[in-house]
Amino acid sequence: MLDLERHREMLRNCSIAAALETVGERWSFLILRGAFNGLHHFEEFQSTLGIARNILSNRLARLVENEILRREPDPADRRRVAYHLTDKGLDLLPVLLSLREWGERWVSSGPSGQVLVDRATRRPIASMQPRDADGHPLSRGQLEWVDRSEL
Amino acid sequence: MLDLERHREMLRNCSIAAALETVGERWSFLILRGAFNGLHHFEEFQSTLGIARNILSNRLARLVENEILRREPDPADRRRVAYHLTDKGLDLLPVLLSLREWGERWVSSGPSGQVLVDRATRRPIASMQPRDADGHPLSRGQLEWVDRSEL
Repeated sequence: MLDLERHREMLRNCSIAAALETVGERWSFLILRGAFNGLHHFEEFQSTLGIARNILSNRLARLVENEILRREPDPADRRRVAYHLTDKGLDLLPVLLSLREWGERWVSSGPSGQVLVDRATRRPIASMQPRDADGHPLSRGQLEWVDRSEL
Repeated sequence: MLDLERHREMLRNCSIAAALETVGERWSFLILRGAFNGLHHFEEFQSTLGIARNILSNRLARLVENEILRREPDPADRRRVAYHLTDKGLDLLPVLLSLREWGERWVSSGPSGQVLVDRATRRPIASMQPRDADGHPLSRGQLEWVDRSEL
């Protein structure tokens, strides 16, 4: 028998819900993707994403407010503003990589052009998947949800 | 100098954009999270998430249409419908885990109640992060984006 009250409590505390408030929106995510690929200026985001200026302006403001991007004067031209990923923003990389991998496998037609590699070996990074403490991949059947109190 | 045309082409083909069309919406993601935690019936989703019936109905239909959930007659009561994750849906686990980890670290106040463990050792799974082919974590400075053609 499913304990609905326990599930409700769990979901109320769920950090996914909180995270989605911040980054779950399509344009916000595409702006982030651009930032991870080296875009910094309003005009770059605008022309690359083909996003309406008022929406871009709104989403950039929200990402700054949520401390995922920060605004800085561009060192090359102090009148221009440059957007940079904060540590909180940079820490979204695993989310983007997982989502991209899933999209490549199930949604789009084939792999995308850019690949993240280990700088030292030039080999592509491993696939994003659940792993044990030693870094070995775990299949679905090897996983189990438990209550933190049971650990 | 930033090659905007190349970025534009890249983003056009980006599988994240495609993936977000399917699962980037807040309620869709929370429904998925419920499904990963064992919810199967309309009423369970409804009472657990506190979502309006028409929105729930719409989002479930979209997830079925996108082949992330499938509808099946409930074996216990053939008049009832049960929703189950497809392989495509189950494959979203790394996305949910990465997003949850980020949310726990940066957004919500502390870790959530449920933990995913290695069934054999009862140890929590490792953190979701970029790793080399041998499963060793790679820090930001060890990573580099390259064009697939350069591999």
